Amino acid sequence: MKLVSFSTHQGPSFGVVRDDSVVDLGKRLDNRYADLKALIAADALGEAAQAAQAGKGDYPLSEVTLLPVIPNPEQIFCVGLNYAEHVKETNRETTEQPVIFMRLPASQVGHGQPMLRPPESRQFDYEGEIAVIIGRGGRRIAEADAWNHIAGYACYNDGSVRDWQRHTTQWGPGKNFYRTGAFGPWMVTSDEIEPNALMTLVTRLNGQEVQRATTQMLIHGIAKQIAYLSTFTPLAPGDVIVTGTPGGVGAKRNPPLFMKPGDQVEVEVDRIGVLSNPIADEA
Amino acid sequence: MKLVSFSTHQGPSFGVVRDDSVVDLGKRLDNRYADLKALIAADALGEAAQAAQAGKGDYPLSEVTLLPVIPNPEQIFCVGLNYAEHVKETNRETTEQPVIFMRLPASQVGHGQPMLRPPESRQFDYEGEIAVIIGRGGRRIAEADAWNHIAGYACYNDGSVRDWQRHTTQWGPGKNFYRTGAFGPWMVTSDEIEPNALMTLVTRLNGQEVQRATTQMLIHGIAKQIAYLSTFTPLAPGDVIVTGTPGGVGAKRNPPLFMKPGDQVEVEVDRIGVLSNPIADEA
Repeated sequence: MKLVSFSTHQGPSFGVVRDDSVVDLGKRLDNRYADLKALIAADALGEAAQAAQAGKGDYPLSEVTLLPVIPNPEQIFCVGLNYAEHVKETNRETTEQPVIFMRLPASQVGHGQPMLRPPESRQFDYEGEIAVIIGRGGRRIAEADAWNHIAGYACYNDGSVRDWQRHTTQWGPGKNFYRTGAFGPWMVTSDEIEPNALMTLVTRLNGQEVQRATTQMLIHGIAKQIAYLSTFTPLAPGDVIVTGTPGGVGAKRNPPLFMKPGDQVEVEVDRIGVLSNPIADEA
Repeated sequence: MKLVSFSTHQGPSFGVVRDDSVVDLGKRLDNRYADLKALIAADALGEAAQAAQAGKGDYPLSEVTLLPVIPNPEQIFCVGLNYAEHVKETNRETTEQPVIFMRLPASQVGHGQPMLRPPESRQFDYEGEIAVIIGRGGRRIAEADAWNHIAGYACYNDGSVRDWQRHTTQWGPGKNFYRTGAFGPWMVTSDEIEPNALMTLVTRLNGQEVQRATTQMLIHGIAKQIAYLSTFTPLAPGDVIVTGTPGGVGAKRNPPLFMKPGDQVEVEVDRIGVLSNPIADEA
């Protein structure tokens, strides 16, 4: 099942994508769940599937505005330096524990929405990644049990303002400019993707492939990420883990390859889909 | 005016502290505001002051459980390495821009509540700080205008699990263990503290002074912090900025001085008050 958050002229809602249409679950479930995060927290994906099967599409997919899959996560964790080629190109070393930084909800946009280059920088870079959405929350989750805490998977573009990322040792500012990260197009529920699934991640800028890797190449795998994060903080339904980017980022190319207005960037993960966004200057 | 978030057997609320009692604003304002963050967002501090003046205390202060001043901020930003003595003791260098990292709401406790040492570490350290609570939100706020965006000030203990802070270059995990940071006891509204006020910050562990500094010693002052943060992200009412800790942290002493169960830690800021917390092992 493919779950989306979206908005129409009637306001924000969430639903299921079937073929090229969206079944509006907000409406069909009688507004019992405020949003997709609430649906996940209520463990009501079965109810969603039933409602979606019964209902016809309410809107053509092309006529809704897709929002970030989870527009309002309590916590968004990103894993840095988690593919060997990317560790090498940044002249860093692999660490025993995953490198964790955070994004804020305001830094996200949905599929099809412009990722914004701020006027403060010309170093706006892509980072294709696989995102994990937490289903059942928990603390000190064992690696072996981690897969039971995943609601689904999505594509993520961890858009990065490189000069601001390097102002100090801490990367937060360069990772949190308003509407610089993309999260979508939808969440594929974890009943369709087995634990430790082999998935291939490809990033394309204006049609040209710039990053490629598989989940087998992750230094700290998804189960370990969930175990590590949940050791220090309770994970909550709808929390997002952005699992790391492969080699090939624009800042480390010669010459550097940064995104500019008019560009189109895509993150494709087989078994999930394609997240596509234009680049625009912030107005 | 001193504003608090608190809970009683009737659930969470917020109010004004007068002498040794709490006026319950949740009740007296007819539940029009869900919490202190909502009151601030509605720019209703005047209404709060009126209600508090009219009303008698509803509870003795000693009989309510104080919560973090803002229990549910959208964003909690912390400024690292912002006093010269602390920069020196950590063998770092001063940077042109402030060092920014983030805390999550789950990492906070209120005045009087135990700060929890997790079983994963014996390196639980104090960091006394002054916290700024944002009133009016905004983006790209000019330094000269920053003071108009402050709702008030509080004390903060940015409790840090040092070995987890140093797992990698990014400090987030060591700064976000569950219930390790303290925020209170209340917010003193900014009508009582003039822009660029001289305030003295003192941290005491078991009655012994371990940190002392004044706001004049801040490397990146409060107005600059607001200008910098709001350049990359919109600041929202109730957002918290934890402005930096002076020299004297436990990890850099010889021998190191870490907090352990039974200890009592205090952060005092003149013109605000004293934030006091016992240390306990996480159960």
